[in-house]
Amino acid sequence: MRLIDERTGLDYIPRDECMRLLATQHLGRIGVVVAGRPVVLPINYVMDDSSIVFRTDDGTKFDAAVRGEFVAFEIDEVALEYHTGWSILVTGVAEEIVDPDEQRRAERLPLRAWAPGAKSHYLRVTPVTISGRRIVSPEPSPDDEVIDL
Amino acid sequence: MRLIDERTGLDYIPRDECMRLLATQHLGRIGVVVAGRPVVLPINYVMDDSSIVFRTDDGTKFDAAVRGEFVAFEIDEVALEYHTGWSILVTGVAEEIVDPDEQRRAERLPLRAWAPGAKSHYLRVTPVTISGRRIVSPEPSPDDEVIDL
Repeated sequence: MRLIDERTGLDYIPRDECMRLLATQHLGRIGVVVAGRPVVLPINYVMDDSSIVFRTDDGTKFDAAVRGEFVAFEIDEVALEYHTGWSILVTGVAEEIVDPDEQRRAERLPLRAWAPGAKSHYLRVTPVTISGRRIVSPEPSPDDEVIDL
Repeated sequence: MRLIDERTGLDYIPRDECMRLLATQHLGRIGVVVAGRPVVLPINYVMDDSSIVFRTDDGTKFDAAVRGEFVAFEIDEVALEYHTGWSILVTGVAEEIVDPDEQRRAERLPLRAWAPGAKSHYLRVTPVTISGRRIVSPEPSPDDEVIDL
């Protein structure tokens, strides 16, 4: 049985499957509110248990925008030609990892920097909400439970 | 000569190249502020001249969240293994296309719906700002102009 949104025809992905999918990817997008307006930027991340860890450059606008702020984190994998795919949206506060033991742990994570700038901060997003949707092309079957969210 | 951000080592992409790259893709992410908090969701889009056109489902939270709102629109293409790629961020207001002639024009755009839901609204984002960055792995050359933004 699938859980299907009546209006969009999208399957809901259970939380444990969201966590599994989050661990399969390393490219996501952070959404943050800056001066009341949304900003979305790609980031390289890794999962550390159930939290999202990424690096920021000291002194950058991005670092200032996300540090300590409530952020949205999105990953997706979509094959437009087949109308299939999925997306996951996580929300939570991006907190700098300041504990020395946790910093050392973060430094051992397989988190590569993209660019030659100094990436001196590790930030962690502990999920407050996690939601996932799967794009399904076939019509729903009679066994599917249709929900309206 | 490249324009390089001193802190991040990222190349800036000129606006006309951003517009060209926007036309090569059909999957982007919309960022919007809902009750003061950021939300990021993937969308299928096409460029119509210099504006971004996408569809929303009537009555959905997403439709209500973006219609008439200032949004961020992001696309990227990143090869993590090679530390190369680019991303583009567009901001602007997502306005419903209500003029009948423009609606007919929108219906002719190669904009396919992902899911079986009724996609009754066409929204257009006319860019207010466009910024693009290219991730470059090689060290900057002496010919590059280094700027600090």
